[in-house]
Amino acid sequence: MRAAVIGGGRVRFVPDYPDPRPRPGEVLVRVKLVGICGTDLELLKGYKGFSGIPGHEFVGVALSGKYAGRRVVGEINVGCGECEFCRAGVREHCLRREVIGLTRDGAMAELLAIPEENLHPVPDGVPDEVAVFTEPLAAALRVLESTQVRPRDRVIVLGAGRLGQLVARVLALTGCRLTVVDRNDWKLDLLGGLGAELRSGVEGIENAADVVVECTGSPGGLRTALRLVKPMGTVVLKSTTAEGAELDSSVVVKEVRVVGSRCGPFEPALELLRRGLVRVDDLISAIYPLERVEEAFEEAKRSMKVLLRI
Amino acid sequence: MRAAVIGGGRVRFVPDYPDPRPRPGEVLVRVKLVGICGTDLELLKGYKGFSGIPGHEFVGVALSGKYAGRRVVGEINVGCGECEFCRAGVREHCLRREVIGLTRDGAMAELLAIPEENLHPVPDGVPDEVAVFTEPLAAALRVLESTQVRPRDRVIVLGAGRLGQLVARVLALTGCRLTVVDRNDWKLDLLGGLGAELRSGVEGIENAADVVVECTGSPGGLRTALRLVKPMGTVVLKSTTAEGAELDSSVVVKEVRVVGSRCGPFEPALELLRRGLVRVDDLISAIYPLERVEEAFEEAKRSMKVLLRI
Repeated sequence: MRAAVIGGGRVRFVPDYPDPRPRPGEVLVRVKLVGICGTDLELLKGYKGFSGIPGHEFVGVALSGKYAGRRVVGEINVGCGECEFCRAGVREHCLRREVIGLTRDGAMAELLAIPEENLHPVPDGVPDEVAVFTEPLAAALRVLESTQVRPRDRVIVLGAGRLGQLVARVLALTGCRLTVVDRNDWKLDLLGGLGAELRSGVEGIENAADVVVECTGSPGGLRTALRLVKPMGTVVLKSTTAEGAELDSSVVVKEVRVVGSRCGPFEPALELLRRGLVRVDDLISAIYPLERVEEAFEEAKRSMKVLLRI
Repeated sequence: MRAAVIGGGRVRFVPDYPDPRPRPGEVLVRVKLVGICGTDLELLKGYKGFSGIPGHEFVGVALSGKYAGRRVVGEINVGCGECEFCRAGVREHCLRREVIGLTRDGAMAELLAIPEENLHPVPDGVPDEVAVFTEPLAAALRVLESTQVRPRDRVIVLGAGRLGQLVARVLALTGCRLTVVDRNDWKLDLLGGLGAELRSGVEGIENAADVVVECTGSPGGLRTALRLVKPMGTVVLKSTTAEGAELDSSVVVKEVRVVGSRCGPFEPALELLRRGLVRVDDLISAIYPLERVEEAFEEAKRSMKVLLRI
């Protein structure tokens, strides 16, 4: 099959990659559209020493199983099925889990093998170009599971990149007093309709936020978040690139809560997309054919969401 | 008055320090006994650039006000009285607060000026040598306000120093499955009666704890805590010397909650001491007269709780 493959610090198109072989409980999905996310760019730089097919934001058509012939999106964590977390239905925390496109081959290919239980059918009215945002939108919704956001809270989103955009759009639905900070005007401009305060810097908003959501993906973002959060407030960390982010004593002095937040719920994400409550089409910077994956990754480094059509 | 004074990287006895002048709402306390805590040792090393009289764990006799003639202990945060935190009764988070023995003169002296509202009378049956532990015991109790500890939780306390001892003793009252880790056998030996698992290392308990309480006071303690905590578990940070402690990506991947925890409630601490539910007398390594404060600080660096008798 045709596939995009990461290895040796680059990504390239491979016309004749071996077809995946589904394991028991897994089905094949014919992939239609895949998003490139920040984690994919990190994989290219060597994150997790990954080599293989990346891609974990996808929409496709199931080729077998109970969803055969239907459009599907899919959760990315593949649990062992036996541990306390899998038994509790929290397979994203199975300590022996695999992750699609991160520890095993992902969706930037014609075919994807994935457990049937990971799949969710896409409602008819939702176009592929919208459904492909289900996984990152679910991750954004996870913020609301990681901490309580109350209508009167002041909430600051640091970073208006791919993830920050979705987090801001989800938070805007809560009625909270929302501020989004990013140095790039063009990113903030995409959030013009939210009723949020848009800022290029953080002067004057120290100790102001009940909740700060760190979406910059840079280690320095945590320090900024700790400056902006109120005593006893909460900092939600969304970037797995938190490696080396330094705490300072304000965590203890201000008794701040720092909460990691990763994958989220697919059904509510699909429902928000179906009802048009979160707009995503304006985030698409470009759509490339799979064959031009190298260009697509380059484009993704300097733009918003880049999609690959398979 | 006689006082101990920190300045220029050393602590010294001063026989003729000016008497404190209470401000409106403040009273004078004739100090009887003061504890040396980890923060005092940090002040000596230059923490916060402090110079003046240290000491914030004390018991004394109020000289005026409604507690005149009675033995008292005192909370250390002095709020502005006007901000949202002071109005909510959370003066320990007033952004303009002063802190006794940390940003203004403390209790290692004959006389201490302190707001009357900060004082709590000591029940008759509680000796000075026990009452002097009220402040650090309150800080230990704060762990139970910072996060929920359930009877079936596995809880690991990292560090069996001054604070870890009290945290472990408080946690042992909850019925949780308690493990305490410290490299020093003599510190663990003090916890022999708790029914806790006592360990010199962390091999084999990775991803095992619902809650880890970091009491080592060293920046590396956080990394260890992140290894030991379960996915979606909680790490409580008790050391203000968290400066420079590094997060790693496991905070996000495991969706850990890192919670800062500082000063705690005095009344419950006094009640636990009155009822003898938390033993503290075995933690006293030595009692020095104030005149020998320099020796006392040296002793505190290598032992458990050192007290100064004024």
